[in-house]
Amino acid sequence: MKQPVTVLGLGSMGSALAGALLDHGHPVTVWNRTAEKAAPLTRRGARLAATPAEAIAASPLVVACVLDYRVLRAVVEPESLRGKDFVNLTSGSPEQAAEAAEWFGAGYLDGAIMTTPEGVGSAEVMVLYSGPRPVFDAHAPALAALGDPVYLGEDPGRASLYDAALLGLMWSAMAGWLHGTALVGAEKTTATEFTPVAIRWLGTVNRFLTRYAEQVDEGRYPGDDATVDVQIAAIGHLIHAAGARGVDNALPELLRGMMERASAAGHGADSFASLVEVFAGRVAAR
Amino acid sequence: MKQPVTVLGLGSMGSALAGALLDHGHPVTVWNRTAEKAAPLTRRGARLAATPAEAIAASPLVVACVLDYRVLRAVVEPESLRGKDFVNLTSGSPEQAAEAAEWFGAGYLDGAIMTTPEGVGSAEVMVLYSGPRPVFDAHAPALAALGDPVYLGEDPGRASLYDAALLGLMWSAMAGWLHGTALVGAEKTTATEFTPVAIRWLGTVNRFLTRYAEQVDEGRYPGDDATVDVQIAAIGHLIHAAGARGVDNALPELLRGMMERASAAGHGADSFASLVEVFAGRVAAR
Ligand SMILES: NC(=O)c1ccc[n+]([C@@H]2O[C@H](COP(=O)([O-])OP(=O)(O)OC[C@H]3O[C@@H](n4cnc5c(N)ncnc54)[C@H](OP(=O)(O)O)[C@@H]3O)[C@@H](O)[C@H]2O)c1
Ligand SMILES: NC(=O)c1ccc[n+]([C@@H]2O[C@H](COP(=O)([O-])OP(=O)(O)OC[C@H]3O[C@@H](n4cnc5c(N)ncnc54)[C@H](OP(=O)(O)O)[C@@H]3O)[C@@H](O)[C@H]2O)c1
Repeated sequence: MKQPVTVLGLGSMGSALAGALLDHGHPVTVWNRTAEKAAPLTRRGARLAATPAEAIAASPLVVACVLDYRVLRAVVEPESLRGKDFVNLTSGSPEQAAEAAEWFGAGYLDGAIMTTPEGVGSAEVMVLYSGPRPVFDAHAPALAALGDPVYLGEDPGRASLYDAALLGLMWSAMAGWLHGTALVGAEKTTATEFTPVAIRWLGTVNRFLTRYAEQVDEGRYPGDDATVDVQIAAIGHLIHAAGARGVDNALPELLRGMMERASAAGHGADSFASLVEVFAGRVAAR
Repeated sequence: MKQPVTVLGLGSMGSALAGALLDHGHPVTVWNRTAEKAAPLTRRGARLAATPAEAIAASPLVVACVLDYRVLRAVVEPESLRGKDFVNLTSGSPEQAAEAAEWFGAGYLDGAIMTTPEGVGSAEVMVLYSGPRPVFDAHAPALAALGDPVYLGEDPGRASLYDAALLGLMWSAMAGWLHGTALVGAEKTTATEFTPVAIRWLGTVNRFLTRYAEQVDEGRYPGDDATVDVQIAAIGHLIHAAGARGVDNALPELLRGMMERASAAGHGADSFASLVEVFAGRVAAR
């Protein structure tokens, strides 16, 4: 028999998690403040518990996904978790994850789901975990039902920290894509024409990231592919082309300003990776 | 025999282009202001011409890659191109491409190389072209030696426009990645640990772009996956976590400001794609 799992919280994400566990044949016990939300799951064989404590008692592995850490503490009694492993997929800060690890004890694993609910269960989707390695190893097979489990280390705050960093990357990439979409859109190119080319291009950009990651770790940024100063000139051309078409240039202007700060700090002939000195606060603001 | 090709300009990019054509067995004639730069190519069988006109006369297809359009006009006489097809891979603006199409005549194809020189020749790399379809079709087999040829349409400015838009996407994505790298770096995670996870995550982001492209084209942005208002709260958590670690937050603060402008304009319950209204200048600046 597959590992029984309890899911606490049946909002849009918790419901998707419980559904994915059912898809994989796990016996699933659920609890939610608003019990009616359990109906689609109980129809598929999930057991509805009357209280969080009753739900927790039903399985050796408990997964929680509620609104925030305040709700988590109100719902889950540390006493009730004695002998259980507890995977918390509620979003929060690294500090909240560290406090929760203290509060909930040795079986506590923190996680971050890197998708919206409809992506849950896909093997392409990452679910990030940090906390005790043995807890992760014991439950990785069950957790694989939710998405590909990626273990980041013992520090319980690591999953939340990556979550924040990855969401920041997402917003920046999506904003850059929207700026480009607005630019080509001004010349009657549709977003659906532009986007497949943009996605292919991000594959090329990924290779730059891999190369630049080594430069960041070495603290040396040889500009043998393209220098900051050459890119300052090139982003000027982008700003000119976009401005002439009525596109809002606050984003590329900010990026140009950061490149100029890197250049002024002596990185003009270095690669774009040298901007990490600006981001890390090692170059004075102007 | 393979199509003979002339390459004008042997800077780092022109040399890579000529080398890739030699790799594919094309007879190659080259010209460069500084003739010595031809040596590595003539050793491999390229013919060095004494003047641009002599080089152009040698092949039905002429590829140019010089510093800028000013140099291009100084080097290439429109008269000398009579009966030739001319592919210009010099970077410039859409307006410059349109003027060049007038200047150089019916055989003019404009292009943009979406890589640094060491990527030239890879089938994964895109080279964008715009201009007369018959010119593209006639030479696509030879041009494939330089990278995957992607045709964007008859408007000669289209390749330059995409080039600008894609570079803007690159700078935004790289900046978001560096912000994240600085954030996790503050907790002793290396860039080489973080980057493979970031690259996998961009694969998930690509799926959002594909979905949002349709929303942009329809001008409707249903926020059924994640709303702007939810993301305003989430980026606040990122800014808090990064600020507490000394990371420069100008980039996420700018993005939050754009999200707030979208929300104030009535897009709070819409998806992130609604920010295209801000980028396209359809939402008033604050
Ligand atoms: N949705 C996503 O795309 C996504 C992606 C990644 C991470 N997350 C994270 O996953 C978590 C849940 O998100 P969601 O989208 O499922 O949110 P949601 O649909 O709003 O669900 C919120 C859940 O929290 C419960 N809850 C709220 N206040 C409560 C209280 N005072 N006492 C008891 N239970 C309470 C709700 O119970 P009721 O049903 O009784 O209201 C519901 O189960 C959040 O931390 C979110 O950041 C979401
Ligand atoms: N490098 C890249 O990563 C990259 C990527 C995409 C696009 N591009 C574009 O490709 C083009 C060439 O770039 P590159 O990297 O090859 O630059 P480069 O190494 O600086 O080469 C510049 C070329 O222009 C020639 N040139 C400059 N001024 C001239 C003049 N007054 N008269 C005649 N020839 C002159 C140079 O000749 P000499 O050898 O005699 O100086 C050389 O052939 C640019 O438009 C660039 O934006 C480059």
